[in-house]
Amino acid sequence: MIKAAIMGYGTVGSGVYEVIRTNQKEIDKKVGQELQIKYVLDLREFPGDPVMEVLTHDFEDIINDDEVRIVAEVMGGLHPAYEFTRRCLEAGKSVCTSNKELVAEHGAELIQIAKDHQVNYLFEASVGGGIPIIRPLNSSLTADVILEISGILNGTTNYMLTKMADEGLDYADVLKEAQAKGYAELHPEADVEGWDACRKIAILTSLASGNQVDFGQIYTEGITKITKEDFLYAKKMKCAIKLLASSKKVGDTYCAMVSPVLISRDNPLYMVNDVFNAVKVEGNMLGASMFYGSGAGKLPTASAVAGDMVDAARHLGKIITLFWSPEKLTLAPMEESSKRFFVRMKSAEAAKACFGDVELWDAGVQGEIGAVTPVMSEAEFAKKARDAQIISMIRVED
Amino acid sequence: MIKAAIMGYGTVGSGVYEVIRTNQKEIDKKVGQELQIKYVLDLREFPGDPVMEVLTHDFEDIINDDEVRIVAEVMGGLHPAYEFTRRCLEAGKSVCTSNKELVAEHGAELIQIAKDHQVNYLFEASVGGGIPIIRPLNSSLTADVILEISGILNGTTNYMLTKMADEGLDYADVLKEAQAKGYAELHPEADVEGWDACRKIAILTSLASGNQVDFGQIYTEGITKITKEDFLYAKKMKCAIKLLASSKKVGDTYCAMVSPVLISRDNPLYMVNDVFNAVKVEGNMLGASMFYGSGAGKLPTASAVAGDMVDAARHLGKIITLFWSPEKLTLAPMEESSKRFFVRMKSAEAAKACFGDVELWDAGVQGEIGAVTPVMSEAEFAKKARDAQIISMIRVED
Repeated sequence: MIKAAIMGYGTVGSGVYEVIRTNQKEIDKKVGQELQIKYVLDLREFPGDPVMEVLTHDFEDIINDDEVRIVAEVMGGLHPAYEFTRRCLEAGKSVCTSNKELVAEHGAELIQIAKDHQVNYLFEASVGGGIPIIRPLNSSLTADVILEISGILNGTTNYMLTKMADEGLDYADVLKEAQAKGYAELHPEADVEGWDACRKIAILTSLASGNQVDFGQIYTEGITKITKEDFLYAKKMKCAIKLLASSKKVGDTYCAMVSPVLISRDNPLYMVNDVFNAVKVEGNMLGASMFYGSGAGKLPTASAVAGDMVDAARHLGKIITLFWSPEKLTLAPMEESSKRFFVRMKSAEAAKACFGDVELWDAGVQGEIGAVTPVMSEAEFAKKARDAQIISMIRVED
Repeated sequence: MIKAAIMGYGTVGSGVYEVIRTNQKEIDKKVGQELQIKYVLDLREFPGDPVMEVLTHDFEDIINDDEVRIVAEVMGGLHPAYEFTRRCLEAGKSVCTSNKELVAEHGAELIQIAKDHQVNYLFEASVGGGIPIIRPLNSSLTADVILEISGILNGTTNYMLTKMADEGLDYADVLKEAQAKGYAELHPEADVEGWDACRKIAILTSLASGNQVDFGQIYTEGITKITKEDFLYAKKMKCAIKLLASSKKVGDTYCAMVSPVLISRDNPLYMVNDVFNAVKVEGNMLGASMFYGSGAGKLPTASAVAGDMVDAARHLGKIITLFWSPEKLTLAPMEESSKRFFVRMKSAEAAKACFGDVELWDAGVQGEIGAVTPVMSEAEFAKKARDAQIISMIRVED
């Protein structure tokens, strides 16, 4: 029998407990022996919940119990999750987590500590919820040079953008509805400003490059400025507007960014709607592949954490190779990346005067016109846009 | 340095050689040391090809060389691939393969032999070409009970069906064109009769259940009877016609089948076109996820074989847990599975008389009408259809 603990009994933590209890027989078969939850750590009480049998309020119970070999860290936030994780790893316990903030900030360091103590730090659930993407990147696509990773990595904003597209609603109304339904938080900045997606693309870029990516370096733009008029143009152009997190290989490094983009029907990300997530990976040999599924939600995320716990149980005393060193990666300057830009301006003449040979779109919005610029660098666009009266701009993903 | 051999220098074999030569630096980094191809086995000569330096015509060179720790078996066919694979495993060499016939027929047995000799038998490339699906099923989705696996697993037929849908062509014309382009073989039965997809869903069902599935038990229907008129109805119904290989959990076993189906836009498989493949996996906790990419082709398939070689190199002397025992799985009888059926018949009256409360579709084909039956079992449908004059039938995937 292998004993485990769960730190945090919030949405994901209670999900992990439920997944293991529900699928106990299957999981034990996959592990080769029984996987038993000996402790659940939470400061609160849960009267009437069967978790009470194993609930503890004291982290020291877990850290001092040598029987506990695997710990799920599903507390979220940096502190005390970081300290608890370190101490678990140093005590020879493998840690499985859904905590993207912690992985993005301290991933390389915690992987190294795990290695030094012959245990594993696993974080499949930190990106894409239930979608297997970390393990495929780490163990399957190992014969490829990763040219590009791009994805819809935030379920809340994708739900909101889908709603705006389908129902012609404006941003503020959709946000209110998403909050009422519990899809968006009362303080929705982490989602709508793109911070959540930013951490996730930082993790994926670290794995693709093998070096530590500082997420603070990544240009991040959220969806707060997207309006219903933008969607009138998108429809006309047969495009979707998505919050895209992307990372493209440039020389020996990557250029990463998060921003709303116009995506055409040819792109498999076009059809990723509602709270679904998807990650597209392009290898130099493999071509394009895509991983699609529930990017968030209690049980899908918990399923990924529990899957990591199974893998940790199968690898007691053995290190699962993870290709992510603490050495920092200097990202390529976003200003040098090239693409087309969609702009809304007062007149076709103004658009042509600013950006040259543009492609014009009339979506019936009075007093303005849509224009797609030729391919140019971000720096070039910024320079040309400086004196232009631009109503709104969305990047075009080709 | 780890030395390896490639058996077979056909499409996939030459691809594996190319992938490793092209990405040598990356691959060595991922392995942690140099991965060197010491032999390539093929009966032919390849004058002017750099492979000549390592080419051998004699399998004994490989089997007797203790330096060779990893062998890629990309010969295809059952013999001598089976004998060579056995001998390699018994000699303590890990084997990585793209050979779906061999894996479907002898997978469990070869995995057991590998285990007995502390080596690994890996076959990511046998299903879905470059799409990682075997490893995610085996290592990521381990905390879930797999309720359903369904996929578009054959690139040739998907190309043909996409072509028929887009250009309104008939089956025979599309087949000729696909053959001219090299997408379909001169003897196309393995693809168009569904045999290739059948072997692949047998492999996936074995992995989902943990037991050996006999592919001969799986009901398999190809695309040879699909006509351009069928697509007129599909368009009207806003559906795609796809060759679907599926496996659905029924009690303690699975019901597997391969057949053309009508798929609506809500299904993520709807948008999988041309030579692309995709596998949808539904877990009881995870919900639905989908894996999409190049299902065939030299480099994508070779990339998957080379990825397995990296994994084998990382696991020298260590067994990668694979959950596939030789015990046979008795599949659930296909006759008991229930669904809706689309039928083309002479008249609405005839359709109603046979199948009751049908949904009618007029696609403007003279002298007939389309009808979708209520949900019923395959047995019930067969009984009702016995005396009906049915022009054609396609199952509906909900």
